[in-house]
Amino acid sequence: MFGNYLTHVRSHAPLIHNITNYVTINDVANILLACGSRPIMSDDPVDVEEITAVCSGLNLNLGMLSPRKLESMLLAGKKARQLGHTIVLDPVGVGASTFRQNAAHQIIREVQPDAVRGNLSEIRMLAQKCKGTNGVDADNADIIDENNADKIAHFVTQTANRLNCIVTVTGTIDFVSDGTGCFLIHNGKPEMSKVTGTGCQLSALMTAFLAANPDQKLKAAAAAVCAMGLAGEIAWDHMAPSDGNATYRNRIIDAVYTMNEAILDQGARFEMYRQ
Amino acid sequence: MFGNYLTHVRSHAPLIHNITNYVTINDVANILLACGSRPIMSDDPVDVEEITAVCSGLNLNLGMLSPRKLESMLLAGKKARQLGHTIVLDPVGVGASTFRQNAAHQIIREVQPDAVRGNLSEIRMLAQKCKGTNGVDADNADIIDENNADKIAHFVTQTANRLNCIVTVTGTIDFVSDGTGCFLIHNGKPEMSKVTGTGCQLSALMTAFLAANPDQKLKAAAAAVCAMGLAGEIAWDHMAPSDGNATYRNRIIDAVYTMNEAILDQGARFEMYRQ
Amino acid sequence: MFGNYLTHVRSHAPLIHNITNYVTINDVANILLACGSRPIMSDDPVDVEEITAVCSGLNLNLGMLSPRKLESMLLAGKKARQLGHTIVLDPVGVGASTFRQNAAHQIIREVQPDAVRGNLSEIRMLAQKCKGTNGVDADNADIIDENNADKIAHFVTQTANRLNCIVTVTGTIDFVSDGTGCFLIHNGKPEMSKVTGTGCQLSALMTAFLAANPDQKLKAAAAAVCAMGLAGEIAWDHMAPSDGNATYRNRIIDAVYTMNEAILDQGARFEMYRQ
Repeated sequence: MFGNYLTHVRSHAPLIHNITNYVTINDVANILLACGSRPIMSDDPVDVEEITAVCSGLNLNLGMLSPRKLESMLLAGKKARQLGHTIVLDPVGVGASTFRQNAAHQIIREVQPDAVRGNLSEIRMLAQKCKGTNGVDADNADIIDENNADKIAHFVTQTANRLNCIVTVTGTIDFVSDGTGCFLIHNGKPEMSKVTGTGCQLSALMTAFLAANPDQKLKAAAAAVCAMGLAGEIAWDHMAPSDGNATYRNRIIDAVYTMNEAILDQGARFEMYRQ
Repeated sequence: MFGNYLTHVRSHAPLIHNITNYVTINDVANILLACGSRPIMSDDPVDVEEITAVCSGLNLNLGMLSPRKLESMLLAGKKARQLGHTIVLDPVGVGASTFRQNAAHQIIREVQPDAVRGNLSEIRMLAQKCKGTNGVDADNADIIDENNADKIAHFVTQTANRLNCIVTVTGTIDFVSDGTGCFLIHNGKPEMSKVTGTGCQLSALMTAFLAANPDQKLKAAAAAVCAMGLAGEIAWDHMAPSDGNATYRNRIIDAVYTMNEAILDQGARFEMYRQ
Repeated sequence: MFGNYLTHVRSHAPLIHNITNYVTINDVANILLACGSRPIMSDDPVDVEEITAVCSGLNLNLGMLSPRKLESMLLAGKKARQLGHTIVLDPVGVGASTFRQNAAHQIIREVQPDAVRGNLSEIRMLAQKCKGTNGVDADNADIIDENNADKIAHFVTQTANRLNCIVTVTGTIDFVSDGTGCFLIHNGKPEMSKVTGTGCQLSALMTAFLAANPDQKLKAAAAAVCAMGLAGEIAWDHMAPSDGNATYRNRIIDAVYTMNEAILDQGARFEMYRQ
């Protein structure tokens, strides 16, 4: 079922414009190439509208945000919205910076992204004006397990309704909702959090999946989450005892590169939450 | 023959100043170290002239260009020209942005680079004010094969004459001309296009080859193109079935690191086009 | 003895704020994750004070410095000093740029870092207003060997006194002094200089070690230097003949990831210099 969405990425090869942080920008480009998409990067107001116009998707990532980049995101975002492109917002570290928090709200309001993806703390911060997060990672109060999965699925669904877009929360279990249904996804490995930017990579991947499957956005978003988690599992199976997070980083991207429809169909582990 | 130019890079260890995009900046630094050169990065007007003055080559890459970086390129470029340093221009994505297109023309006019390297779309855009390209990759009309190689060699030679510098077009076949002769180069693997920044890396490598071989610039440029393509071939031979573009990225740089004069002499595959 | 400091990094998981260059920023993030610390990046004046306030360490790296980033470093640095956080300064390429040189002196004066780490040229430039360096690497006059180790240890100790902070000089032998004692460290491999950013990575690692061991700063700094050098040795032992500097880069970070207290205790090779 989900493998088909990957095949569409490969056959459509959507060009994705990324305005993103410089920590993980190379990995974002390589994972887009790995899935069959094509990346382009520009983050200056001088040409972001022109660049985004030739693309079909726009990936906005708030890591290392500056006023210049926010201006670029708003310009590119409005142009992309006007042209009907797919837009994904990744509110990296939104809990640690008032500037990023205000920027996220402004982007949601003025650009209306198709999807938002973050960890539980980040999405909570978007949903409620609540306490600060502990850096870019979820804080302890945000641990996800089988015991609170129902509660979180409910929260994600509500938030999707409130923000009027697909909301994805990633953690031990991942949640993807468009405000009606909510997918719970069980792919992934905890060691993925030891590689910087696996979240950024997923947001880029999701942009490509949505851009190539515009009629099935909820399922395409869930498929991207499964693909990323499954890549983490496959990559982990190839790790030797002396390998660490740098090798794991490469193997995760490799696993997206070598993934095909059958592998994703067989490896995707998800269920639909029904209230 | 070409292996000698690599040996000169290793013995002279030229210091190369890079004003480049942040997507592939780490790979640019590591491939310069791999070939025996030494990288230095600075892209702010505040110190680019001073930085470039202690170098012997300057690599200008238009990916993610901003007005601030263009100002830096013009300042550093004029200083480097005045000091007789080697200058290479990589017009990344010049077809997708009017700002980048104007910047490329301004740099060619005011800085007079020794060499320009791009894909066919990008070089066409510099030669003629023609239609936009499809992102940073060559568009379909720009496919290079044995059938149109003569025609493209003619175009590259003409463009080298018009721009008054060495022009390199990379694709299925690579072309390097100084306006008189034109090398056709048959090294490389199509999978290299699945790794972000192999073009940026080649432009950096070319800057090092030209800086270390200032009396043989055409041959040194062609040698750099052979070395990069050959590295792609050697790297591919070391790929396992589970490896993808992230591992390939590392192995290409590794293959430059382990390359020596004999390997390059034996592996370089080129011919001279004569009109 | 030193392994204990690594264990503390793992148990405290200090959040480290990095204002650093874009060449090696991904490696800096991944090596912090590898040692058990957590990275966060922001370099815009708009939110650096707020970001640094939730951290316990601040890593300031002068590579690719711009006026905007210097302003961020001063804002974040003063806030971090006020809050009693650990601050490390890496004066990358300080000899090649008057702007960076003045910035380094301003940061030392106004922010008072706990530690400064560089190669011999860079530290000499901070200690004396002397001749320019040859790029970001130590120049020939700065070769360190057994013959001049005593002299350099004396210089490093004096400089630590003059700058009133821990001073680390890395090279063939590494030196770490707080102005009283001076550790001489014999870990590491010369090939580490063929990987861009091993110095940047060490400065980040040192920030984490100091933040997690605030009562033993000199020893924690020396332990970080041993850990980085030992990672270079372990990584080298895993290299195949076809591997080069890109694979070495990954294996060094991997070796930090797989390092534990016993490995560091057994592998650390250091002596105390006594005048």
